[in-house]
Amino acid sequence: MRSLVSVQDLTNDDLLRVFELAARLADEGGVEPRRNLAIAQESLAAIGISADALALDRVMATLFFEPSTRTRLSFEAAMHRLGGRVLGFSDSRTSSVSKGETLADTIRIVNGYSDIIVIRHPLEGAAHVASCFSDAPVINAGDGGREHPTQCLLDLFTLRRELGHIAGLKVGLCGDLKYGRTVHSLAQGLARLGAEPICIAPATLRMPAHILDFVQETTGTRPPEVERPEEVLPDLNALYVTRIQQERFEDPAEYEALRGIYVVDPELMRRASKDCIVMHPLPRVDEISPAFDSDPRAAYFRQGHNGVPVRMALVCLMFAAVEPAGIAPGIPGAAADPGRECDNPRCITRAERYLPQRFDPLPYGGIRCAYCEARPAQQELRLS
Amino acid sequence: MRSLVSVQDLTNDDLLRVFELAARLADEGGVEPRRNLAIAQESLAAIGISADALALDRVMATLFFEPSTRTRLSFEAAMHRLGGRVLGFSDSRTSSVSKGETLADTIRIVNGYSDIIVIRHPLEGAAHVASCFSDAPVINAGDGGREHPTQCLLDLFTLRRELGHIAGLKVGLCGDLKYGRTVHSLAQGLARLGAEPICIAPATLRMPAHILDFVQETTGTRPPEVERPEEVLPDLNALYVTRIQQERFEDPAEYEALRGIYVVDPELMRRASKDCIVMHPLPRVDEISPAFDSDPRAAYFRQGHNGVPVRMALVCLMFAAVEPAGIAPGIPGAAADPGRECDNPRCITRAERYLPQRFDPLPYGGIRCAYCEARPAQQELRLS
Amino acid sequence: MRSLVSVQDLTNDDLLRVFELAARLADEGGVEPRRNLAIAQESLAAIGISADALALDRVMATLFFEPSTRTRLSFEAAMHRLGGRVLGFSDSRTSSVSKGETLADTIRIVNGYSDIIVIRHPLEGAAHVASCFSDAPVINAGDGGREHPTQCLLDLFTLRRELGHIAGLKVGLCGDLKYGRTVHSLAQGLARLGAEPICIAPATLRMPAHILDFVQETTGTRPPEVERPEEVLPDLNALYVTRIQQERFEDPAEYEALRGIYVVDPELMRRASKDCIVMHPLPRVDEISPAFDSDPRAAYFRQGHNGVPVRMALVCLMFAAVEPAGIAPGIPGAAADPGRECDNPRCITRAERYLPQRFDPLPYGGIRCAYCEARPAQQELRLS
Repeated sequence: MRSLVSVQDLTNDDLLRVFELAARLADEGGVEPRRNLAIAQESLAAIGISADALALDRVMATLFFEPSTRTRLSFEAAMHRLGGRVLGFSDSRTSSVSKGETLADTIRIVNGYSDIIVIRHPLEGAAHVASCFSDAPVINAGDGGREHPTQCLLDLFTLRRELGHIAGLKVGLCGDLKYGRTVHSLAQGLARLGAEPICIAPATLRMPAHILDFVQETTGTRPPEVERPEEVLPDLNALYVTRIQQERFEDPAEYEALRGIYVVDPELMRRASKDCIVMHPLPRVDEISPAFDSDPRAAYFRQGHNGVPVRMALVCLMFAAVEPAGIAPGIPGAAADPGRECDNPRCITRAERYLPQRFDPLPYGGIRCAYCEARPAQQELRLS
Repeated sequence: MRSLVSVQDLTNDDLLRVFELAARLADEGGVEPRRNLAIAQESLAAIGISADALALDRVMATLFFEPSTRTRLSFEAAMHRLGGRVLGFSDSRTSSVSKGETLADTIRIVNGYSDIIVIRHPLEGAAHVASCFSDAPVINAGDGGREHPTQCLLDLFTLRRELGHIAGLKVGLCGDLKYGRTVHSLAQGLARLGAEPICIAPATLRMPAHILDFVQETTGTRPPEVERPEEVLPDLNALYVTRIQQERFEDPAEYEALRGIYVVDPELMRRASKDCIVMHPLPRVDEISPAFDSDPRAAYFRQGHNGVPVRMALVCLMFAAVEPAGIAPGIPGAAADPGRECDNPRCITRAERYLPQRFDPLPYGGIRCAYCEARPAQQELRLS
Repeated sequence: MRSLVSVQDLTNDDLLRVFELAARLADEGGVEPRRNLAIAQESLAAIGISADALALDRVMATLFFEPSTRTRLSFEAAMHRLGGRVLGFSDSRTSSVSKGETLADTIRIVNGYSDIIVIRHPLEGAAHVASCFSDAPVINAGDGGREHPTQCLLDLFTLRRELGHIAGLKVGLCGDLKYGRTVHSLAQGLARLGAEPICIAPATLRMPAHILDFVQETTGTRPPEVERPEEVLPDLNALYVTRIQQERFEDPAEYEALRGIYVVDPELMRRASKDCIVMHPLPRVDEISPAFDSDPRAAYFRQGHNGVPVRMALVCLMFAAVEPAGIAPGIPGAAADPGRECDNPRCITRAERYLPQRFDPLPYGGIRCAYCEARPAQQELRLS
């Protein structure tokens, strides 16, 4: 675990290590960095990893090319709780990007100023590019709509912490399952850890087929799909609610027809089991009524707080694993394919023209862009 | 002293504790966090408060929904001088607020990332709302024009430090006394500590009657009101100057008629006593001539610097007092009054619609909003 | 060395002290603040300077009135590596400047919040003004196009570190030598340390005569001037490339004619010696091909990384030298000249009207503004 670009970079064992260390930090740790570091060192020693300093006085660079208070502040809190230090920017308007610098150059320089880099960027594949040009470990804090792996880690950790385990859980995923990348990662993570995702979405916002395929291949069961939470609520161990994002709709009428179709409130939750927790990646708008906040099953604020121990655990594991080794050499992997361009308009290769076009073969045929992992549109049509 | 929303939250004993600790920190402290912490621990022990860690390695969140360099940087400096750590934002454009998150949700999450929250917000009552939704102590760093209690603390501390005591002082308050909330709090604080405020303002910018009433009830004397500083200057121990703020005037001609009517310069100050200090909350524009800066009576820069020891003392006292206790339960106090809405357009309840409308009875009759403390406009008319 | 406004403030001995300490920090230091401080203390003791704390727990204020990620982050990294603390702003829109505060007042207040001030400002002479109003040492991180002394320090340090020495080196300065102030400072620094600058620029962007004069007076040799790098490349020890900045040209056609005339790529560099390093202050746009990045002679990323040890060394030397002494008294120097105004539109005196106009006599006749060092336009015409 050198950099974390996608949850797919982590094995199930990696996930468990993060969760176990995060749980110890949440239970036994606190505000004292030295105590938190001692817990981390002890936990790592128990699995044969010897780590002296971890994050103590290490410098984290938080490079937020688009704003995200919650994610940025929780990374910074995690670093402070471990005795670390933070620098960075929260707005690319105040960065050299406005002078036309490439992402690769920004990363190669910041790499010399810091020991770990957290990046959020509007373009898909940006964190992958950053990890290729950095000698320091890179954590993806969201690259466009593609991946936000630490959100997935804290979601899974919250299930485990609230309900004791993940295997066997029935987890309702409710809202915009078509465009909500958070729930795509979560569905895959649940399947990998033996839980059963259940899809709750209007017909126009259903979970993409390739995610359903992945779950089916992994668990042997294709996730059920329903349109109303009432149909499945009594059986759920957890209900994971997401926002229907206005900006995804070209036709405002279509958005108006769907907004507010799912509202979790005390009345709806009377149909759920008394142990069925409600989760949400936040910020919420109307999807969960504030009247439900005082219900003990409302787990979304605890879920938000779990971002700190999960990120502390992740940072410790990354510092324990890394051997610094000079400036990173650039984009690795398959040979460049100059005859083809990625046609995803949000792919990092569209903005950073020096990147060689590269495509990886897919196990069931076809190819995908090595940066944003989008399949060429023509191929997508042929497959669907 | 769990949170600090208004100076009225502090007893006179609380004020004295802040001033005494701040004085020791200013006299004996310095750049070494451990030394400053030792001073604070010793001072607290002397009044029976046992405090181990105080701010050491604690995390302060500075949530500035509107910009204020001076206030933000002095809080951050105070925290650093105590060995603490800081995270936050200085501009709500880079925060999740742009995604429509409620203040309550923002606070409930940041509460999990930090040990103390400093908030500045454009709407009145916002800091009160924050304190209701936070388990960590909250400090109001300005909520619209309503309260800015740490400014009042450093103003009173400066008088005490420069002149040795507060009781018995004659303090001229000069400039915009109608809209300048800083001078409203200061007039009340002076009265509570036995000093005598003297009002110097044009007829259209006089001190509101309810502040004059408060002073009269507290000290037995109604503050004198004059239009020209020359009339009272020889008797003053201190002259507190404020800016006449252009943005308060609907009619530009009215502002033009008043701007520059008060300019403190060496010539004016020849009429004052040789010990009469000049204070200003800063930033100044034209109210004090730079030619007066080198006069030893020019106390405004020393006043600005006092913001650091005062905020250090406040933070120490708050950490010594607080027992963390889980997520805060929401708005306490009187029952909601769904039949009435606060009519102050700058009240936090106008923007954050989930807040129940609540009104508190006033001791002399009438009611006021539990958030912004504005009295309904109709009632205000009847009373005036 | 109390403040650093211009490289001209430093003697050759000062420069060598910075370079020697920076080299030790780069070679023997690392991420541990205590180790870095011990190295600095040992180095300082060896030259008779006793320094206890240096930057440990000191507070640096980074006041960036205009954005510069690279410079700001490298100062912050330097301070963190020394165990220091940082506060500040990266965008004057979030500062009190928007309320019309003068630079002098901002500095006098921030001076009370911090132990060292780093300032970047769009107006020429701003850092000089800041140093006059600050009791804490001030470092100029760029004042308009005038000076950026820490860039010059790291450029010279990079030559020394990459090539072992500076005296005797032939260094090609290539690109916009007319407006690029970085290369003006570098040319002077090279001459002072016994190296030989060689100018490579199109006819319309030649090095100004007064810089060529300075070099000639210092080294006895007037720098050669050529239009094509090919003419001198085989003889160079280093090629320093700068960007041709679009914003300098009033006529877009003129810019279009010049953009891309110099592109360093593997083919061009085949003509250079195998030890000839390539430097660039970054960010680059098209001047250096990414295809050259993997050549060991590509020193520009190492050069960027050198910003951290150089700034660490500088900060240590400044903390070792400074005796705090109360609020600074204002603008020193020659008597004010109320009958004349500086006519440089980017001079700080044009925006900050309280500054007395002052002019210094020049050794060869004429005068220059004491703030921005511009000569009056009429005089400039007469001299040229």
